[in-house]
Amino acid sequence: MKNDFYNKSYISIDQITSKEQVMSLFAVANTMEKHVLSGKVYEPLKGMCVAVLFYQPSTRTFTSFSAAAKRLGAYVIGLNEMNSFSSAAKGESLEDTIKAIHQTTGANAIVIRHPDDNSSEVAAGASYVPVVNGGSGKKEHPTQALLDLYTIYRKFGRFNNLHIAMVGDLKFGRTIKSLSKLLTVVGEKITITFISPKELRAPKELIKELKEKGVTISQKSQFGHVLEEVDVVYMTRVQKEWFEKEGKMEEYERLKLKFILEQKHVDKMKKESIVMHPLPRVGEILLEVDNDPRAWYFKQMRSGLYVRMALLKSILLK
Amino acid sequence: MKNDFYNKSYISIDQITSKEQVMSLFAVANTMEKHVLSGKVYEPLKGMCVAVLFYQPSTRTFTSFSAAAKRLGAYVIGLNEMNSFSSAAKGESLEDTIKAIHQTTGANAIVIRHPDDNSSEVAAGASYVPVVNGGSGKKEHPTQALLDLYTIYRKFGRFNNLHIAMVGDLKFGRTIKSLSKLLTVVGEKITITFISPKELRAPKELIKELKEKGVTISQKSQFGHVLEEVDVVYMTRVQKEWFEKEGKMEEYERLKLKFILEQKHVDKMKKESIVMHPLPRVGEILLEVDNDPRAWYFKQMRSGLYVRMALLKSILLK
Amino acid sequence: MKNDFYNKSYISIDQITSKEQVMSLFAVANTMEKHVLSGKVYEPLKGMCVAVLFYQPSTRTFTSFSAAAKRLGAYVIGLNEMNSFSSAAKGESLEDTIKAIHQTTGANAIVIRHPDDNSSEVAAGASYVPVVNGGSGKKEHPTQALLDLYTIYRKFGRFNNLHIAMVGDLKFGRTIKSLSKLLTVVGEKITITFISPKELRAPKELIKELKEKGVTISQKSQFGHVLEEVDVVYMTRVQKEWFEKEGKMEEYERLKLKFILEQKHVDKMKKESIVMHPLPRVGEILLEVDNDPRAWYFKQMRSGLYVRMALLKSILLK
Repeated sequence: MKNDFYNKSYISIDQITSKEQVMSLFAVANTMEKHVLSGKVYEPLKGMCVAVLFYQPSTRTFTSFSAAAKRLGAYVIGLNEMNSFSSAAKGESLEDTIKAIHQTTGANAIVIRHPDDNSSEVAAGASYVPVVNGGSGKKEHPTQALLDLYTIYRKFGRFNNLHIAMVGDLKFGRTIKSLSKLLTVVGEKITITFISPKELRAPKELIKELKEKGVTISQKSQFGHVLEEVDVVYMTRVQKEWFEKEGKMEEYERLKLKFILEQKHVDKMKKESIVMHPLPRVGEILLEVDNDPRAWYFKQMRSGLYVRMALLKSILLK
Repeated sequence: MKNDFYNKSYISIDQITSKEQVMSLFAVANTMEKHVLSGKVYEPLKGMCVAVLFYQPSTRTFTSFSAAAKRLGAYVIGLNEMNSFSSAAKGESLEDTIKAIHQTTGANAIVIRHPDDNSSEVAAGASYVPVVNGGSGKKEHPTQALLDLYTIYRKFGRFNNLHIAMVGDLKFGRTIKSLSKLLTVVGEKITITFISPKELRAPKELIKELKEKGVTISQKSQFGHVLEEVDVVYMTRVQKEWFEKEGKMEEYERLKLKFILEQKHVDKMKKESIVMHPLPRVGEILLEVDNDPRAWYFKQMRSGLYVRMALLKSILLK
Repeated sequence: MKNDFYNKSYISIDQITSKEQVMSLFAVANTMEKHVLSGKVYEPLKGMCVAVLFYQPSTRTFTSFSAAAKRLGAYVIGLNEMNSFSSAAKGESLEDTIKAIHQTTGANAIVIRHPDDNSSEVAAGASYVPVVNGGSGKKEHPTQALLDLYTIYRKFGRFNNLHIAMVGDLKFGRTIKSLSKLLTVVGEKITITFISPKELRAPKELIKELKEKGVTISQKSQFGHVLEEVDVVYMTRVQKEWFEKEGKMEEYERLKLKFILEQKHVDKMKKESIVMHPLPRVGEILLEVDNDPRAWYFKQMRSGLYVRMALLKSILLK
């Protein structure tokens, strides 16, 4: 299969423009899964070096990229506290840091997380080697979208004829936007039900774009009878901050209860459906749900390891 | 020999209930020592991954576990600043973090240090894979107790007929409690002399428990003639904080001098005896003692490497 | 060739006393360069452990030493935030920490960066294994001097008959002092033109020492026609802080412009000359210069990887 990722930076979900691209990456991810589960040593990147530079500390994305590169045999140079380090403190530009890190380590690829929206683009422009976006500001976290999609693929083996409920903060949440756009690239006959307080509704432009691409959309402000019908419930956190800022805390307290997933909700779902969440959760899914076979939010994390391994391998090896 | 540690969490010294358990672990530790000293590559955990998550930063325990896992060939994912990271900051529960880290890295075991007394138990309850306690609150630091015991074993090759002086803060100090309890599991005809200011005496329940298990106990408030008789002097820091809180700083200044080990003290000790200290020291043992062959507190640190290698290997391989 | 570095600490540039020493190290560095560029696995330090302890966080020096050791196959135990860790916080001495880290990890060598001028000397005095100075206070950063010299060697293949302009802060800057002294050890017929505001002139003792060793020196307060003649322009930052302290900010604003390297300056330089800078830069070299083939400041960083690999290998293997 053609490897569209070889020797390129991966900085935006907009780079994913065809189902073939996704399928070739997921075929690699599936191989990665087998290697990891076999417990056998598999080190195609042995001798290579991956730098993982996080200007915003992160537990799971940092460890996921580090583990992905190490499991493939690469040397990893990881800094999870870049902001406190000397070069940033001394006023060095991001461009210079990216160049310097490559020179000083010989890194074959650089993973970066940075608070600025355009940081990955800037880094990729300056870099001698491919850059992977591990999260840039509020705009992009393009491996999250891929791991969400891969989770759906692992479960259903298809993208067509799926009904997905996206629940919670649809206004500020980044993941549901990226995932819904990505679904239009790979799938047909997609139905999305957006469920949120009216203050946190999905942006109109997003809805318009999705409709134009053939997605069947509906919007609700409570679960209602949707749970019985969907293949996927994608939960996100209803953000308290927004209601606080508007002085609407009473409304928040009333609303948030509608968007907490309990076992009684899951009991209504189809046997073959799944519950997803980008994590961390702070109460949106009760602990009682964790042991239900439809609870896939931790398996979803594992998709991140496989997709990041596949991405690094595809970028670094032809 | 039977491996009681395989595929289990190690969270409390109370899990050590038989001499056989200890001897099988120490046999592995002894093999580890030979491998390290040979300088040859020995990687039985190659292909496996160990996550080392420290919510309380630590120099020596963090580096010791990391080195132990790396020397055995495992990939190590280490975070020594967990508290400042996003998942904790965003309010994620310890249980969720432990599950997420396993999923995101594929870790085969997780080492955790955390300020809460019951953190390791909670983590082990949630975890898909074995958890090793690298220190939980004021309660447990169960690899420290094992490394202390292994140090005694390396020197004397036995646990019976030993006389140990434990000196300093016996009230709040964790190490002397764990070590004395552990000695009752493996040894017979143990004599312990507790030496401390009366304000920092060993708890009555501890003394009662040890006596019931056949240990010969005496309590003193200065070295006196004990040094001539003992096999081990286990020094700890007299904690200034306690006296400060009670407004007894004059007493502290007077007392602490009685519990500083100088060369003149060591000169009284038997040729085959040793001085131990959990480190870091802040003056309890003068530098002049360091070159005495009885100064074993740095060798004691090395026991930590061997015991942690043995523990990780025993947990991860049948 | 004789390996003068084997099993010794490297703590000061003053340890470099002969051209032979330098040439043997650079021969190894050259081999390292070939190994890195080949992309093949080369792990002569496999089975060994290098601890990298930075009390002052650093992006490039920390990653450079870590990458150097990892690329040679060593296990690396890296702490880039030593000051915040428990042993330092609990008041442990540097000597005890150095000993403890060796014992707890089995490290075969320890790289240290520390704010105290004599820290590396103290650490080497206490250590069981060789210590490498990764920067000690304002006094020494002896691998920087070597990488600067190796950069010159990579370009010119010689040290004789070179004319070097050193520009900017010559009073407080550490790199230009170390490099000029090192040049007198290896080269003949060296010419150095120091270019700086008069407030930041090179110290008289340095000038005296260099002259005694046969260096031809001149001092200027602007580029003038020097650029046409030199082989190397070594830029450093004019330090605002100094002028601020003296209340001479107007003078600073006027002067700094004279020490910013623009493309129009580089255009005057000889085709075979190079521009160096220890980095990070904060404006002393305009971005427009980066693509000029004479811009060698990022290649200079890469010299750091090769020199540190060569140094670690030479120290750890006969």
